[in-house]
Amino acid sequence: MAVTSRDVARVAGVSQPTVSRALRDDPRLSEQTKQRVREAAVLLGYVPSDAGRALSSGRTRRIGLLVTDLTNEFYHHIIAPVHHELAHHGYQLVLHTESDDNGDVVDRLLANGIDGVVLATTTVDSLAPLRLRDRGLPFVYLNRTNTQVDADSTVVSPAQGFADAARRVVDLGHVRVGAVLGPSNTSTGQSRELALRAAMADHGLALETRFVRRGPYETGVGDAAVTELLTLPEPPTLIFCGNDVVAYGALNAAARLGVRVPEDVSVVGFDDLPPAAWPILQLATIAYDLEGMAREAARLAVLRIDEPAKPLSHTTFDTTFVERRTLGEAPLH
Amino acid sequence: MAVTSRDVARVAGVSQPTVSRALRDDPRLSEQTKQRVREAAVLLGYVPSDAGRALSSGRTRRIGLLVTDLTNEFYHHIIAPVHHELAHHGYQLVLHTESDDNGDVVDRLLANGIDGVVLATTTVDSLAPLRLRDRGLPFVYLNRTNTQVDADSTVVSPAQGFADAARRVVDLGHVRVGAVLGPSNTSTGQSRELALRAAMADHGLALETRFVRRGPYETGVGDAAVTELLTLPEPPTLIFCGNDVVAYGALNAAARLGVRVPEDVSVVGFDDLPPAAWPILQLATIAYDLEGMAREAARLAVLRIDEPAKPLSHTTFDTTFVERRTLGEAPLH
Repeated sequence: MAVTSRDVARVAGVSQPTVSRALRDDPRLSEQTKQRVREAAVLLGYVPSDAGRALSSGRTRRIGLLVTDLTNEFYHHIIAPVHHELAHHGYQLVLHTESDDNGDVVDRLLANGIDGVVLATTTVDSLAPLRLRDRGLPFVYLNRTNTQVDADSTVVSPAQGFADAARRVVDLGHVRVGAVLGPSNTSTGQSRELALRAAMADHGLALETRFVRRGPYETGVGDAAVTELLTLPEPPTLIFCGNDVVAYGALNAAARLGVRVPEDVSVVGFDDLPPAAWPILQLATIAYDLEGMAREAARLAVLRIDEPAKPLSHTTFDTTFVERRTLGEAPLH
Repeated sequence: MAVTSRDVARVAGVSQPTVSRALRDDPRLSEQTKQRVREAAVLLGYVPSDAGRALSSGRTRRIGLLVTDLTNEFYHHIIAPVHHELAHHGYQLVLHTESDDNGDVVDRLLANGIDGVVLATTTVDSLAPLRLRDRGLPFVYLNRTNTQVDADSTVVSPAQGFADAARRVVDLGHVRVGAVLGPSNTSTGQSRELALRAAMADHGLALETRFVRRGPYETGVGDAAVTELLTLPEPPTLIFCGNDVVAYGALNAAARLGVRVPEDVSVVGFDDLPPAAWPILQLATIAYDLEGMAREAARLAVLRIDEPAKPLSHTTFDTTFVERRTLGEAPLH
């Protein structure tokens, strides 16, 4: 016969609701009580029924994280902090990608019995936020936002980082400056382009059309775009990349073409992912607290589930410029 | 009033059980029927209740993936294929790490209402497989196995890859060969060490104790160990690394010390992760079908859930040696 929470309550000498609260690690219970309940549960071989728990509380204690593509390195670096923060609040992380092959992503999110969503991929015109709002499923924007539906969000403000970078770039004598920008239908693509152009304009520099490429934030995109830029008759001497993952592709393109970094071309990324600091890469980049931003988005999702009516929260993370080996003086020729 | 599967069945002109089967993308239904049900569900705004579904079928359609640590690059490369394969079979992926801060990992796996587990982290003596078996939760070993409990598994056979690598290493004149091996209580650490020693012995070479270090498969471990090896009075001229993530650390150590790769020291990895082929890395390594292995583990988990009594399946993936820039001739001095 299956062991029930009633059996555990009896052995632990607590009420039945206390059993489920203890096993959820409810902070309002003492460690002593939780320990007693856990020991009784282990002793009896009790396995709480997730389905039963969901029906009684209306909660599944699961939050979905929606990313564009799990093979993209950028998302690798947000999964760990989101998972860690959710685990801290007693929530599980369920992964969703835009590219799953079974149907519409919002249908899947809704069908899967989750309490909320952290949206790490959205375009300014995508319908997912509208549909999530209409169905009443709480969600938080992580990194990218959408213009049509307001919701809790954690985003990056690129202005300060680009201002500092532009100053150094001008000091080092660069004039022919190129860029591989993110997609123009993403808030990150838009805000980084605006901030970069504004920072350069402050020094009388322009981002010329012939030196600009655009595309998804992927290593292959950076590689292809920079291969084009470096084979122009008069190539740029410095290339700003939409993010570090794109910058890895830029470095690959230069290495394949035998173009030296930074002697012949400088490369600047965005995100300061952990490998950017490695001695073998030493990528100059725009930094912010990526891990903190991801954790904050997870925390906001939990808060939103607990208090659906509370005012919206918008957290902005500031940027700084990190100078490293891939930024050098403009070549003289 | 909430829309039920009965409403969807009526509109789609099918039976009620057909609705849930269609929305689970059951391959036994025709595409036409599934399409009709999906359209009716969307039309009515029907959201299947996950909890109700779990109670009626006894299944949650969720599978847990247990990894050591989500910040470790190796695991980034198995999450995508496991997720993709599970999505293909209509299962969701729930991430679990050994390092979550709320209690025993097996308790968490059991408490979370999953149908099965893909175990991507286990030591030869860990208790998790025993406890999963005793509780009757299906699981599959991915990459690492455990000696105490037999279960479906997908593993790598390192012998051929090391045999080919050793032949080239000897041809290139290396005699002082070092290694940064994985933990000796993991099946991968054990099998790779045995295969490497056997391959070298075939050419009359030994792995001397002074040139061997051991530790978790982490970039920082590779960095620290190779910093030690390269500062020995008579350092090794080639270092085999437990995996590519460790090899990244080896390359970082060499770069920091100003030791040239491959002129002064050669580095060989294991796994052939996608960055190993990048022009800026060009890491010589032992390759196998990592994505295929991860997908196969996910597939075996689904099969095991469907047929608990079927015979165990053990799939072994062969290895080859991939020669790249980080392997060169032994220096003359």
